[in-house]
Amino acid sequence: MIALALAGGSSSGKTTLAKRINKDLVETSYLRTDDYYKDFSNLTLEERKKINFDHPDSFDMELMVKHIKDLKNNIPIEAPTYDFVNHKRSELTTRVTPKNLILIEGIFALISPELRELYDMKVYVETADDIRLLRRIKRDIEERGRTLDFIIQQYQNYVRPMHFKYIEPTKEFADIIIPRGGKNDIGVYTLESALKELLNK
Amino acid sequence: MIALALAGGSSSGKTTLAKRINKDLVETSYLRTDDYYKDFSNLTLEERKKINFDHPDSFDMELMVKHIKDLKNNIPIEAPTYDFVNHKRSELTTRVTPKNLILIEGIFALISPELRELYDMKVYVETADDIRLLRRIKRDIEERGRTLDFIIQQYQNYVRPMHFKYIEPTKEFADIIIPRGGKNDIGVYTLESALKELLNK
Repeated sequence: MIALALAGGSSSGKTTLAKRINKDLVETSYLRTDDYYKDFSNLTLEERKKINFDHPDSFDMELMVKHIKDLKNNIPIEAPTYDFVNHKRSELTTRVTPKNLILIEGIFALISPELRELYDMKVYVETADDIRLLRRIKRDIEERGRTLDFIIQQYQNYVRPMHFKYIEPTKEFADIIIPRGGKNDIGVYTLESALKELLNK
Repeated sequence: MIALALAGGSSSGKTTLAKRINKDLVETSYLRTDDYYKDFSNLTLEERKKINFDHPDSFDMELMVKHIKDLKNNIPIEAPTYDFVNHKRSELTTRVTPKNLILIEGIFALISPELRELYDMKVYVETADDIRLLRRIKRDIEERGRTLDFIIQQYQNYVRPMHFKYIEPTKEFADIIIPRGGKNDIGVYTLESALKELLNK
């Protein structure tokens, strides 16, 4: 059983990479840090809109650590899901069963020593900041029903400063860096070759 | 036959990585851009000491392109060698025979489109700038007989500005980035897995 972390900035191509691994290689136990925001349902919608979701304090690291450990011990888990429209943890959970490859994806995947020590391989996906912003605007409008004004405010006040303060520095812990993420065919091929070899051991 | 580029800044760990591949994996046709400086033997030693060896214009790109093409066509080549004590191309050449893996290593490995189009895989080795400087000082004193004053002058006037202007931007062309170079075991393992798979095809 292998645990793989895929970290990187917002819209760097982590999810595309995770999906390619899941499709090309082997079915994975797939956990995303985006689903592990703390449950802020005690706050009002207006208060929740002001939460800094790009700060590590918003991330329920303890729950994710517990779930990874459970999966490594062959125990299925109920992963939380997050409601990005209403800015709170959803009522729904997703059952994730233990597979040979546990894939932990998201901006916080390498944020703490407790998480990092659980991984067999640590990958950071690196994509130019302006390309990431372009992708984020498109995604937030098309998939998350946000307005451009909201996106710009959020980017300048939270996403950008938190990225440079907390997320980008976790690159230092990576074993390999995949530029451009899931669309980089040779990068994906390289990672998948290593994973195949590790899984066959 | 596979052609692999290993680029990266001075003292980033490229050579250690190249040697590990050569030892662990398969005997390679090993070319280093450090051996392909232009022949400046028409200049005096004092003039040669002033050459900017960190500028791509000092690099005999045409000769290296020709040699890579020869090797890919199964033709052995006579690689130049460089005399770093006297700052000129040495009289000696090294016979390099075609192998299944052609490994092109050095700061200029990704510098031009003519070179880049010859590769099957492009790797950039990324190591923190201060760590690279530490290693460089040690190497230049112990292996190249340089004084600390000379090293500092060279670093400030040539190595550092040229790195940020010409070398670091070639990272953009990399398929994968290996942090810390040859001492990064999981990074090396990942690269070697992919090379094994490519070589067995």
